[in-house]
Amino acid sequence: MDTFDTIGFLGFDVFGTVVDWRTSVARRAEPFLRRHGIDVDPSRFADEWRAEYQPSMERVRSGERAFVRLDILNRENLGRVLLRHGVEPAALPDSELADLNRAWERLDPWPDSVEGLARLKRRFAIGPISNSHIAGMMNLARFGGLPWDVIVGAEIAQTYKPRPETYLRSIEAVGLPPERAAMVAAHNDDLAAASALGLRTVFICRPREHGSEQATDLEPARDWDVVAEDLVDAARQLGC
Amino acid sequence: MDTFDTIGFLGFDVFGTVVDWRTSVARRAEPFLRRHGIDVDPSRFADEWRAEYQPSMERVRSGERAFVRLDILNRENLGRVLLRHGVEPAALPDSELADLNRAWERLDPWPDSVEGLARLKRRFAIGPISNSHIAGMMNLARFGGLPWDVIVGAEIAQTYKPRPETYLRSIEAVGLPPERAAMVAAHNDDLAAASALGLRTVFICRPREHGSEQATDLEPARDWDVVAEDLVDAARQLGC
Repeated sequence: MDTFDTIGFLGFDVFGTVVDWRTSVARRAEPFLRRHGIDVDPSRFADEWRAEYQPSMERVRSGERAFVRLDILNRENLGRVLLRHGVEPAALPDSELADLNRAWERLDPWPDSVEGLARLKRRFAIGPISNSHIAGMMNLARFGGLPWDVIVGAEIAQTYKPRPETYLRSIEAVGLPPERAAMVAAHNDDLAAASALGLRTVFICRPREHGSEQATDLEPARDWDVVAEDLVDAARQLGC
Repeated sequence: MDTFDTIGFLGFDVFGTVVDWRTSVARRAEPFLRRHGIDVDPSRFADEWRAEYQPSMERVRSGERAFVRLDILNRENLGRVLLRHGVEPAALPDSELADLNRAWERLDPWPDSVEGLARLKRRFAIGPISNSHIAGMMNLARFGGLPWDVIVGAEIAQTYKPRPETYLRSIEAVGLPPERAAMVAAHNDDLAAASALGLRTVFICRPREHGSEQATDLEPARDWDVVAEDLVDAARQLGC
């Protein structure tokens, strides 16, 4: 029995679920690190930069700080990581930092993503419910050929996942009640937050998002509505 | 000389510029009008419905009324037009009125629109800067195959064109300053408002938007940056 008969919209987590941020950021960081003599493995650098992501959003979620777009948080977080490696970001050309920060808008899709999204789009409206800002998602889609119908997410809601408003405002913007939408993510906590609001759930296995030693989200933590190996498998299971 | 070298985003007016609302609304209204014995030509009915559009938005623009989405205004305006024809909307099934109201999300693109947008998209990011709500633009894009990269416009800005915020907030959301964006429209007043804010301008000739007796916007009122016969011609002039 297909429980997706009444579903009109699939909202996607993007970083990790649709695109491989770690490999892509490492590749773009590598020449920058070499040029400035920063002795750190580029993948490790990507991990360190990404590790600042949740704490920086948490200040917005808690209300300690007014909403700011993800590109601004990423840029601040880059400065913090560079400082930790003994590099004063203010001493570097602004254009170089801005260019490196744009790595987050130039991330490779996983090999199945473009085909999977194109197939899912035949049956459902699709769009990111990501913590990225709108411009970041637009540029990423143009870079990787991601065929979104719409971009919703944190900037629309003016707060970050997993705050309920991020999902609810996004679903409202596409004109549907929560029970007519599903969240697609490689992260159990994202699906748990969406499920608590009445959205259906699609888990995508991405066991290499954090590299070969990944320890989290290797398996579905609950009996999500769909559990898929990748986005093509999700499309197949949903009859697309 | 190509003045569009630094342009990164084309924002589109949609009703009239990209889609033929009048013919499409008339076609969907025709069986409804017949079923309820409302004796009015369907194209005339579409005109009457559309005539309520500007006054209803003006109450929001002026601040007299808080922002409400266009589907809600359209639905109220439908009731007003029906009353004028002696039909009490509350006496009709809600589902029929809701279905007729969705006519605005099922409008045929002009014959050149899909090809024109696909070509323009090769060079520029493209998206509606329309007075429609996000869901309406998403559904319209899926109906007609309009390949937007993003949907911005009135709902993002929480006010209606030609209020400056509608353009400025949309351009800000795609991550660009006004001088790196252009407005594409079949309406001189829309281009005048955008131009005053620093956007480039592309005029599309749509002499049949209002039918064979159209009296407005038959010609560019000013020396807009591009004046094109249709969206394919605009793409050609912009080297796409």
